[in-house]
Amino acid sequence: MPDLKTFLEDNRQAFIESLKELLRIPSVSTDSRHKDDVKQAADWVADRFRELEFETQVVPTEGHPIVFAQSPPVPGKPVALVYGHYDVQPPEPLELWKTPPFEPTERDGNIVARGATDDKGQMLTHVLGAMAWMKSVGELPIQVKFLIEGEEEIGSASLPPFIQENKELLANDVVVISDCSQFAPGQPAITYGLKGIAYFELKLTGPNRDLHSGTFGGSVRNPANTLCAMLGSLVDQHGWIHIPGFYDDVLPMTGDERENFAELPFDEEKFKEQLGIDQVHGEEGYTTLERRWARPTLDINGLTSGYQGEGAKTVLPGVASAKFSCRLVPDQDPHKIAESLREHLTKICPPGIKMELKAHHGSPGFVVSTDSPYIHAAKAAIEKGFGNAPVLIREGGSIPICAEFAKELDCDVLLLGWGLDDDNTHSPNEKFNLGDFQRGIEASAQLWAELAKITK
Amino acid sequence: MPDLKTFLEDNRQAFIESLKELLRIPSVSTDSRHKDDVKQAADWVADRFRELEFETQVVPTEGHPIVFAQSPPVPGKPVALVYGHYDVQPPEPLELWKTPPFEPTERDGNIVARGATDDKGQMLTHVLGAMAWMKSVGELPIQVKFLIEGEEEIGSASLPPFIQENKELLANDVVVISDCSQFAPGQPAITYGLKGIAYFELKLTGPNRDLHSGTFGGSVRNPANTLCAMLGSLVDQHGWIHIPGFYDDVLPMTGDERENFAELPFDEEKFKEQLGIDQVHGEEGYTTLERRWARPTLDINGLTSGYQGEGAKTVLPGVASAKFSCRLVPDQDPHKIAESLREHLTKICPPGIKMELKAHHGSPGFVVSTDSPYIHAAKAAIEKGFGNAPVLIREGGSIPICAEFAKELDCDVLLLGWGLDDDNTHSPNEKFNLGDFQRGIEASAQLWAELAKITK
Repeated sequence: MPDLKTFLEDNRQAFIESLKELLRIPSVSTDSRHKDDVKQAADWVADRFRELEFETQVVPTEGHPIVFAQSPPVPGKPVALVYGHYDVQPPEPLELWKTPPFEPTERDGNIVARGATDDKGQMLTHVLGAMAWMKSVGELPIQVKFLIEGEEEIGSASLPPFIQENKELLANDVVVISDCSQFAPGQPAITYGLKGIAYFELKLTGPNRDLHSGTFGGSVRNPANTLCAMLGSLVDQHGWIHIPGFYDDVLPMTGDERENFAELPFDEEKFKEQLGIDQVHGEEGYTTLERRWARPTLDINGLTSGYQGEGAKTVLPGVASAKFSCRLVPDQDPHKIAESLREHLTKICPPGIKMELKAHHGSPGFVVSTDSPYIHAAKAAIEKGFGNAPVLIREGGSIPICAEFAKELDCDVLLLGWGLDDDNTHSPNEKFNLGDFQRGIEASAQLWAELAKITK
Repeated sequence: MPDLKTFLEDNRQAFIESLKELLRIPSVSTDSRHKDDVKQAADWVADRFRELEFETQVVPTEGHPIVFAQSPPVPGKPVALVYGHYDVQPPEPLELWKTPPFEPTERDGNIVARGATDDKGQMLTHVLGAMAWMKSVGELPIQVKFLIEGEEEIGSASLPPFIQENKELLANDVVVISDCSQFAPGQPAITYGLKGIAYFELKLTGPNRDLHSGTFGGSVRNPANTLCAMLGSLVDQHGWIHIPGFYDDVLPMTGDERENFAELPFDEEKFKEQLGIDQVHGEEGYTTLERRWARPTLDINGLTSGYQGEGAKTVLPGVASAKFSCRLVPDQDPHKIAESLREHLTKICPPGIKMELKAHHGSPGFVVSTDSPYIHAAKAAIEKGFGNAPVLIREGGSIPICAEFAKELDCDVLLLGWGLDDDNTHSPNEKFNLGDFQRGIEASAQLWAELAKITK
């Protein structure tokens, strides 16, 4: 048997071939035409575990299957649970892809394909990190469980019930997730906080039909005017959100945390340049990273009303609606925010307008201690895998399942992103750097060793 | 030859069939896919005049053709010019039509189709009123000219140059337009004032692409949030419009006029019931009719931004846009209003957002004397056609060309609406009452006789 390091080094190309196999399966979970492909991807993942003689199940759900596998128990050592997903976003618009989305192509040191970074490539680093141990050392230094789902891109509907019904099977000390990004190229990171979300749809109805804006204008409340007035009043010129009690439960950043953010090599000029904006904007009194990672926000996600075609149509629309969402931080409660918003909007909705508010989904924000043995183990493993110590960061996105894991399984969570901000996640020409793929596999393999040093 | 009255009575059904033919042609002027249909509608109208052996032209323009026709001169008598349009609004949203918009259907005494009342049905009453004279008496008692255009719904861009270049051809004493409404069912009206319009499209661009609202929210100015804030600030809770100088040139109503409005049998409860609203709304200090007819307004006509499909998508949109329009009253100048608006929006548009404001089309408001011989002739003709004396009203809609006619051709203007307020103009299930269609044809035929009584 080769040693672990040699095995990892010698199998670079084999790892890439394995990733390409998985990327060729168009496992688009939202599209029912791909149902069989999604199942094929689940089976492909399960087969990797079966090759290692892990105890493996492909669990059917009302949606797409959940793959669960586990290596043999190692008494006295922590148990890790790797969470990831084998489903992908739709590839559309197809015409913007330089090479077909399900024909993985190597370009400029990257692999380009739908799912390359989100999450097939990142998830696979942990499968291959475990394989490296099994095929070199012959065993893993801790027990590793794998929970790989196929509905992440469509809301993970089957996962919470599966977790609640299988607490013993899934029992672990730390969940490991690689479905996010490094801080910058060459600067790996551990993400210790995520925002929560509360997503809403507001529909205002005025008259019972679209009206001629000349004949009726000025005598009937216009729902589009009202929508703008109502939503326009929710965020003021200071970037402060006006929903009663909105900031009540916001956990302030610590001084250490603000210092840590300030020390990160964040290039605001480059950030603006990449987005094509001449000025950043957000809540007064906070830096860009603080706003993105640790302060709550309110963004309109969509507006629709009246005539949207070419040219002019003089209609007074009967209906106007908006989708908008608040990104929440600990300890804001999405249900409490939703109730407060509903009460506030009901109060400011004027006579002559009927209001419907739908709360789409909500999840709380999430932070873990930056001083746990698991964070220390991950730091050491990443430094060995990437040759560079990780920085500690937070992230503005939401991974609702994190809070679910912590709550239901009473475990810690490690978010170890191997991707990059410009990986075109959810966009055409999604990519994953092949160097980071290899470094991710090495860091994963090291992580099992580092976690084994923790005294239970 | 039958007499006029008998001819009108005997041809009821033939008139309806003729209207249906025209309504079947989807002459949507704003939609370039319908260019050939618009041309077909022009030819159909021209063919009606050719059948009567009127001198007829279909004049190509940079947009859609203008149809001009005239009956033989009658020396010593006034000349009337009928103005109308054969183009229609887009039929969208299609799913709200009970029967297809271009398959005219008789229902509850109405004809239902796009363009039924605006303006194919109303315009055709004058074509058929003239036809009745030609096919019964064999000649018209005055010379009637017809100017039927195909760009009314998109701003009539080709018409003013045509008028300016053809003043002799178009010379007349009184322009007759039927493109508005009666005061109520059974209560015909003569409209002596119209609002003007200034129509705008505002496009706000933030980042150079749609962004993930979690990763970027709170640090980048959201154009949809900004659009709501900017437009929401233009009209306050009193219904007052906040564009600098907006009210400077507004001609106040006279005391007589306000009294006359107050005496009209306007049923506000029924108005609210028909629109499905529990409260009217508009500028403080004015009645509903005053707001609709004689006070300026600002209405959003369309909003579009970000994700508008089913469910939730957490996008921070790169672009947000709105269509909106001000209805103007004499003596507000649409160009002055547009400049003031541009200056104001430029001032309130925040950094981080690029603003584009397109002024689509503008026209001033319009009022004529209520004591001219033409008004008296129209009153008599309408009383004969409808069996009921008309009331004098104003209207909130705009017929931009009215001011142009009066100015360029030095003529009077008669606005004789045969439609009803609930005809769903510009909305799904547009209709025109077939009784009013017949009465309109009879009143038109009577009008040529009444105008012939005026001494030149």
